[in-house]
Formats: sequence, structure tokens, C-alpha cells
Amino acid sequence: MKRSVFILGGDLRQETLKTLLEKENFDVTALGLSEGKFPLDKIKKADILIFPIPASSDGETLNAPISKVKVALSDIIGRIDKNCLVLGAKMPKNAEKMLNDRGIMYIDYFSREELIIKNAIPTAEGVLEIALSEMPITIFGSRVLVIGYGRVGKVIAEKFGLLGAEVTVSARKCGDFAWIEEKGQKAVHTEKLSDVLSEFDLIINTVPARILDENALKKVKNETLILDVASKPGGVDFEAAKKLGKNVIWALSLPGKTAPITSGKIIKETIMNILSETEV
Amino acid sequence: MKRSVFILGGDLRQETLKTLLEKENFDVTALGLSEGKFPLDKIKKADILIFPIPASSDGETLNAPISKVKVALSDIIGRIDKNCLVLGAKMPKNAEKMLNDRGIMYIDYFSREELIIKNAIPTAEGVLEIALSEMPITIFGSRVLVIGYGRVGKVIAEKFGLLGAEVTVSARKCGDFAWIEEKGQKAVHTEKLSDVLSEFDLIINTVPARILDENALKKVKNETLILDVASKPGGVDFEAAKKLGKNVIWALSLPGKTAPITSGKIIKETIMNILSETEV
Amino acid sequence: MKRSVFILGGDLRQETLKTLLEKENFDVTALGLSEGKFPLDKIKKADILIFPIPASSDGETLNAPISKVKVALSDIIGRIDKNCLVLGAKMPKNAEKMLNDRGIMYIDYFSREELIIKNAIPTAEGVLEIALSEMPITIFGSRVLVIGYGRVGKVIAEKFGLLGAEVTVSARKCGDFAWIEEKGQKAVHTEKLSDVLSEFDLIINTVPARILDENALKKVKNETLILDVASKPGGVDFEAAKKLGKNVIWALSLPGKTAPITSGKIIKETIMNILSETEV
Amino acid sequence: MKRSVFILGGDLRQETLKTLLEKENFDVTALGLSEGKFPLDKIKKADILIFPIPASSDGETLNAPISKVKVALSDIIGRIDKNCLVLGAKMPKNAEKMLNDRGIMYIDYFSREELIIKNAIPTAEGVLEIALSEMPITIFGSRVLVIGYGRVGKVIAEKFGLLGAEVTVSARKCGDFAWIEEKGQKAVHTEKLSDVLSEFDLIINTVPARILDENALKKVKNETLILDVASKPGGVDFEAAKKLGKNVIWALSLPGKTAPITSGKIIKETIMNILSETEV
Repeated sequence: MKRSVFILGGDLRQETLKTLLEKENFDVTALGLSEGKFPLDKIKKADILIFPIPASSDGETLNAPISKVKVALSDIIGRIDKNCLVLGAKMPKNAEKMLNDRGIMYIDYFSREELIIKNAIPTAEGVLEIALSEMPITIFGSRVLVIGYGRVGKVIAEKFGLLGAEVTVSARKCGDFAWIEEKGQKAVHTEKLSDVLSEFDLIINTVPARILDENALKKVKNETLILDVASKPGGVDFEAAKKLGKNVIWALSLPGKTAPITSGKIIKETIMNILSETEV
Repeated sequence: MKRSVFILGGDLRQETLKTLLEKENFDVTALGLSEGKFPLDKIKKADILIFPIPASSDGETLNAPISKVKVALSDIIGRIDKNCLVLGAKMPKNAEKMLNDRGIMYIDYFSREELIIKNAIPTAEGVLEIALSEMPITIFGSRVLVIGYGRVGKVIAEKFGLLGAEVTVSARKCGDFAWIEEKGQKAVHTEKLSDVLSEFDLIINTVPARILDENALKKVKNETLILDVASKPGGVDFEAAKKLGKNVIWALSLPGKTAPITSGKIIKETIMNILSETEV
Repeated sequence: MKRSVFILGGDLRQETLKTLLEKENFDVTALGLSEGKFPLDKIKKADILIFPIPASSDGETLNAPISKVKVALSDIIGRIDKNCLVLGAKMPKNAEKMLNDRGIMYIDYFSREELIIKNAIPTAEGVLEIALSEMPITIFGSRVLVIGYGRVGKVIAEKFGLLGAEVTVSARKCGDFAWIEEKGQKAVHTEKLSDVLSEFDLIINTVPARILDENALKKVKNETLILDVASKPGGVDFEAAKKLGKNVIWALSLPGKTAPITSGKIIKETIMNILSETEV
Repeated sequence: MKRSVFILGGDLRQETLKTLLEKENFDVTALGLSEGKFPLDKIKKADILIFPIPASSDGETLNAPISKVKVALSDIIGRIDKNCLVLGAKMPKNAEKMLNDRGIMYIDYFSREELIIKNAIPTAEGVLEIALSEMPITIFGSRVLVIGYGRVGKVIAEKFGLLGAEVTVSARKCGDFAWIEEKGQKAVHTEKLSDVLSEFDLIINTVPARILDENALKKVKNETLILDVASKPGGVDFEAAKKLGKNVIWALSLPGKTAPITSGKIIKETIMNILSETEV
């Protein structure tokens, strides 16, 4: 018998997820993906239940921008069958506690290693799009600084390098410096960033820590574009930047914006991995 | 003594050109690059005179979008000194004839090999920008067809390949096929295009000939983005495409739009090459 | 009815060619590819006859290093049927004239554009092999000069660049300089080579003209490896190099040495193109 | 006052290290790097003492292939000053214990992250050299399997991919699979290797565990080249391979063989990092 998968809320990513899971021979139901009512009682039939990214945008109700219904997470969770596997992303703390209290198995697919790595590609492409759109010079030949050498920083640095930018990456570890140089990029120690900040046409921050504070921003040229892709609180002192007249863009959640269909495909692949490991 | 260079009309590209030529130790005058009057009489002092791209947008008056003055090309050409070197781009036929009749040396910098090659980079970046902005999937992993393997086609195919697209290139010559495969791309004969047109997420035409006619367009999937960068008449039957509901964008003059400062730099480098060859 | 193809002489390349042509549904006979006798009379049955590379190594007899038979080209040509298509490479002048006089169709597959381009890959890999074997430093980070930007020079420069060398290419045309820079390499005018010759760890010549003469060689450091892949007379004054104690290797006919099976495959693809064009 | 560095034994790598450390303003003494006597008593003057790679090849005496002297490690260690910093590689257990017992600070530079990463480049180039030399086909277009996605596997896979091989990498983790695909390579789970072993022209093992046992080797084609770069015990059942007639090369210590000068430079950079961290 086919397992029944419920997809709750979401946007084009979840529509893609629905199409792809149907091809995998699940019995797929989407609630809150189109306009209309939201039949809460059906939820108890789900073997697998998938929340959108984020599960809620207000901390209380389901994130369902297409259907516009307002359904409380607690109303949903109260109806989930005890043997159901729940998959979610950025789940509010109290909702996660409620799942826990009811003894329901919950897995955060958004913190899976492979999803984070695969999402780095649409993130990097979103950064490219903004840079291409905002800068009056070509990426080819431009001087680009990438702050942070985590998964997102690595892919951003790679893509700009491939397009012919002179890429410098800031990091803190000898091993990272060795990899950066192996990739044909220049390495700079994050503690020495302020010595070089004036040299770039484009500065991309990937570190969620206030690295570009007022003093640092003062070293940046006015023509330089600063792109922050770090999640809250971000890496830039945005008020200081505004005061100093710097050109800053805070670009969040790029995968869903730039490439929603690819993002849906990545979610699907991640969920398939989770299912093969949990063997529900 | 410094040679005197006059830059006529234009936009941010000509402003960049002005700044860069000043660094090369010319005595640079820009007319029609800012709002205000246009002192025609000064033109006779020019040793070198540079028209914008295109020289005229209406076939009669100087292309001067920033200053908004209306100055007839004939009024300009009538005042040029006989020993002046005139550099232009897309010059109207009658204006070129007038220069000729007066015995003034005229060189078309826009048809120089190195300018065309260097401009292929901002063109390709402009195509990337549109693809990133319009497509709901990542370029990474997308299936891209590039029609034509001239200078622009080569660079577009290269950039998309570097970003992880599966690139197919259409061409007609055995030698081109060999190069395409050497670059890790697939080759298809232009005469067999219609067999494969349904396989792509993105089709980029670079050939100024009606290759994507109604019959060809019918084979293209509705989700496919078609980007035409060929100059007039373009390579797409735009009316048929509209009727068939295909997603077509005709993107012209990308270098000046995407990267005006880099474009100005390219113009400057080309002009320096011309000057070193003519030894004016 | 299957067409009959005769393969004469040669080495592992021709063995590969034989295997591949058999798969294309030809009736293939190899003469002089193994030890034993060489039945000259059979030649008249050939619809297509393929000479090896080169057709002769002494100008008189067939190049047949495996079989070691000595068969005069004139004895072969005298027996070819008038309707046979003859394909050859580096055919001696008098043999070509004899074919001509007899009115036999002769095509030089070795000068086909696609073969020259495809052969540039094994040539470049052969150069890599020598460089890896002879140099005490990694190609990654080494400073490499490629003299000449023809088909072979382009592919060599590309491969070394991909492996992380700092590549400089010498050329003479503005258009070539633009391409070289588009590839992320440095360009130098061939006439200014002597200014930079002392800067490289590896110098690769692809131009069949005496560019590295005694004066030029004096500028090259003693630790530098000089690799000449240009056909006779080569680009290096080998006597002067020896006298000066320079480290020079003249590497000829690399495709057949480094990758005979791939070379055979390239010959086969070229011959298939010729046949489809001539529709024999 | 300059710190005194003693370099013991070794080969061209240590000669390079000596030259480079002299430029860093150390007082450098090399013992056992040239023919002649080995003045043991001088050792007590060392502030920093550097053993070669490996420190000993017989477990007892210093590895000094150029000088050919036989000096016991115990004789050296007995004479080291208590405040000296000792840097070594693959130090025999009893020698390390002796240093420990004497309270001398000992650091293994050969297990430093940055050295392992940087050495992956000459290792990969050494693998390239062997593949180019041994295979009758070009790397371009060949099908290559890399077993293991550690630091060496990553760099080998990258280099072969850049040269146009179709690269498959075996790994075990979802995160590794995501990275492998991001690099444009195919991923295969190590447990499913036997399903695909017959598909490759070249198999490169980087994992020091008996993955290619007799059963696995039986699946490999006879034309396939198997290259094992894993340290002892290696990843191939060499006896079974011999019996089965497989073409296996066990390539160890490639950096010192392929690129001794680059290797010396890498050792120097690693030692400079260690010194800046220990602030001796």
C-alpha cells in the first residue's frame, strides 16, 4: 500500500515537491497550497507530514502564502497520528516541544548537511544575479572578497572565480588557507580584513556575526557593493552603512527566490534520504 | 604637446572613456556628455574625435542621451579639421560618405576584432543575468542550447558550462564541432536543430538569421526561455513566438546596459590600439 | 554490399582504426599491421585505401613498423583500382604525383581541420606528461610561457591554466590578445618575448620558426625547461641551446606516442567525416 | 640574535627548505645533506631541529640518502638541548618516546592539516603523470573512478575532471555526495562499488583499507589501470591482482618524487606556521 504524504502550506517549492513525490509512488495530499479551505481533520491520515520553509512566519500559524488560510500550528499538531513522521524546517520552539510531548518523531530537514550544501548553489546563483544587476562592471576582472569559508562561502567563491573575478576569501584556519590557495584564490585572515577592505569592487559576507561594523565599513570604497547573505543578525551594521552612504544589500532566503523549482527538488532529494535512513 | 581628443555625446561608457584617456596624457574635451550647450566651433581643434555607440540613434543627430542636445552630424562633420582622425561606431552611411568626401581619415572602432571579442564578455554576463532572473531553476544542471559558434556564442557557451549547465552548441563546420567537444560541450548540426529543440530549459540565439521560425518554435517546450542576442533582424520569428505563447526575450546592446564602465574601458583599449597602429 | 577498406602499415593507431571501422560495417583488411607477408595483389580490391601517418618514413617504402616488410609505395599505387578513394597523411610528393597521374582521388586526412584540433588534446597531454616528469616543481603555481596561439598553443595554454599554472601566451594579433585575456591568461607580443623570457619555469614553443635563437636562449634561466613541439625545423636553435647548457626537449608526434588508441579514434572520426562528404 | 635551525638528513626537499629558511633570517645548518662527516656534537646548539620525511627509513638511523652516513636517532636525540623545538615526520615510536622522556617539545609537521592539503596537489600531479605515461588513451574523455573523498581524493578528482575525464567518486556520506555532485562529478556509494567497477579506464584508490579485494578485482576490466596511492597496507590485494593479471601500480610518497622543490616549499610554509603559533 502506498504511504500517504501530506504537504502543508508553502509555495512553488512545495508544488514541485508534490509533483516529484507523486512520481516516487506516494499518495500525496497538499493542504494550503492553493486557495480554498483547509480540512484539518484529514491530517490524521498522514504517514508522513511535511512543513514548509519556514514552518511558520509568525511563530503561530502555518506559512501558507498561496492559500492565505490562517491555521494554527497547534491545531495541526494536535491532529497528527502518533506514528506519523513529521519533517519540518525552522519549526518554532513551542511547536517542536508539542511534537516532542506527544511522542511524535520529528526531523528537521533544513539542517541536513546535503540540503545545506545543495542550497549553496542557488544561493551563489542568487548572489551572482544581484551582482550582475547592480554593478556597472563585469564580474570578469572584478575584485571580490568573500567573508567566511563555510559551505556557502566556498560555493560563492568558486562561482565568481570561474567567471573570472579575482577572488579573495577571509578565513581563520591554516587548513582553510591551504584549500583557498589550492582553488587559485587569495586568502586573508579575518583579523586582518580591515587592511584590505578598500581593495574590492564587491564584498560578500556569509558569516552571521557583526564583522562589518562601523570602523570596518569606513574602509570600504563608496563604489563597492556589499552583499550580506548571512542569516540574522547579518554581518553588517546596516545603520552605520546607511549613515556612511555605503551600498549594502541584505539578501536572505535566496534559493526559494532565485530557483524555487530547483529548491523543491533539493527538498525532495533530502526527504528521500531521510526516509531511506529512517525506513518508515 | 598633448594631443587633443574630443568625445562626442554618449553615456556612462563615454564618461569612463574620458577619465581613462585623461590618464593617458591626452587633452580631453567632452561635448554633449552633460546637460548644457554644445559649442560646435570647438570641434575644429580636435586631433582625434570619437563618436558614441551608435553615432546617431535617428540617423541624423548625434546620440547624446545625457545632454539631450540635438546636433546634426552634418554640422559636426563640416567643422572637423582635415587632419583629424575620426573614430566612430555604427556611423550612418551618409555621414561616413561626408567624411570620405572631405578626405578625413575615419576608422570604425566598433568593428575591431578585439572590441568584438572583449564585448562578448559583458554580453555573456548580461545573458547570465537575464537567465538567472527569469528562470525558476538554477543554471547549474540546466540544459542550455547556444545557437551559433561565433565570438559571442563561444563566450556564452563557456560561461554557462563553467556554472554547471549542460551546454549544447549548434554549428555547421567540422572544425567547430571539434572545438565544441574539446570544451566539453555537445555539438549539434544547425540543420538538425529541430530534432533537439524540445530538450532545453534555455535556448540562446546568437545568429542574425531567422533560425527559430514558426515550425522550429513549435518544437520548443512552453517552459523554455528563449533569449535572442542577435542584432536585427534577430533569429526568432517574434510574432509566431507570441502567437504560440513562447517565452522570448530579445536582448540587444547588452555590454552598455550590463557593464557600462567595463564597456568604456574596452572602447578605450581599442582606441589605444588603433592609435598605436595609425601613429597619428 | 559492404565497401572494402584496406588499411596499410602503421601501428596501434591503425589497429584501433581497424577495430572501429569494422563496427561501422565495412569489410576491413589490414596489410602490414602484423608480421608476415604482404600480398600486394589484393590491393586492387580496395574501395577505400588508408595510408598510415606518415605514409612513408623513408620517402620510398610503406611505413609499416610492426610487420617490418619493405614495400615500395610505387608498387602499391600501381595496383590501386582507378575508382578507389585513397586517404593518406604526409604522402611523399612523388607518390602523390603518381596518384594524380593515374587519376585516383586522393585526400590528405592529416590536414583536416577537425583532426588537427582533436590531435591538439593528446599533444597537450603529452606536453603535460613531459613537464610533470622533468620538472622538480608542480605545474600548479609554475610560470609557463606558450609561444604561439594556433590550435595546439590554445589547447596547451588551456590545460596548463586549468592545472593552476600562471600562463603567458605570445601572439601577434590584437584579436588573439583579446582571446588570451578572456581565458584568464597573460598576453605578450612575440616581438617583445626577449623582455620576459627570464621569468618562466617552463617555455613551450608551438611555432615552426626559429624564435628561440641564441640571443633569446641566453635570456632563459638554466633551470627553465624548454619544450619544443613545433614540427621541423622546430623553433629552437638546438645547437646553441646545447652549447649554452639549456634544458631543451624536442617532442614530436606526441599523439601517436602518448595516446595511440585515442589517435586511432580521431583518425577514424575524421575518415568518417570525409566519407560522408565525398559519399563514395 | 638569529635563531639557529638544524636540518638533519633528507634530500632535495631539505635542500630547498634550507635555502628558503635562510631567506627568513635563520642561522641554518644542514647535517647529513651532503657527503662527508656528521659532527654530532653541533646538535646541542640547535634552537630548532628538523627531521626529514620520514625521520628514519629503518626505524633506527637517520634518513640521510645523500650523505649516506649512518647516525642513530638515539645518538642525535641524546644531544638535543632541552629548550630546543623538534619538528619531525613519521618519527619512530621509540624515538618519540625518548624525546618525551627528556621533556623536549616535539611537533609532527607531517600531520598538519595545511601540509596534508598542500601535498595533495603534488600527489595528484604524480597520479596524472603515471596515468599519462601508462594509458594508451587521453585523460580527456576517459572514465575515471576515485575511491575515497578525503583531501587527496578531492584534489585528484578535481584535476582529472578539469582535464576532461568523466569522474566518478566513491564515498559514504550524504554530505560528500552533495559536494561531489556540486563539482560536476558522479557519486557512487562505496558499498555499491562492485556494481560499477567494470566501467572505468582508470581506478585510483586513496583509502588505506582493503577495498579492492579479489572479488572486486575480478570485476575490473583487464585494460583498466589501477593506481593505489593509499599508504600501507594500501587498498588493493596486490597478490590477487597479480594472479588475475590486473594492471596495478602502487604509488607512494609522490610529492617528494614528482615535485621535490615544491614539497620543500610546503614543508617550509608549514614550519613557519608552527613557529608563529608556538612563538619559540
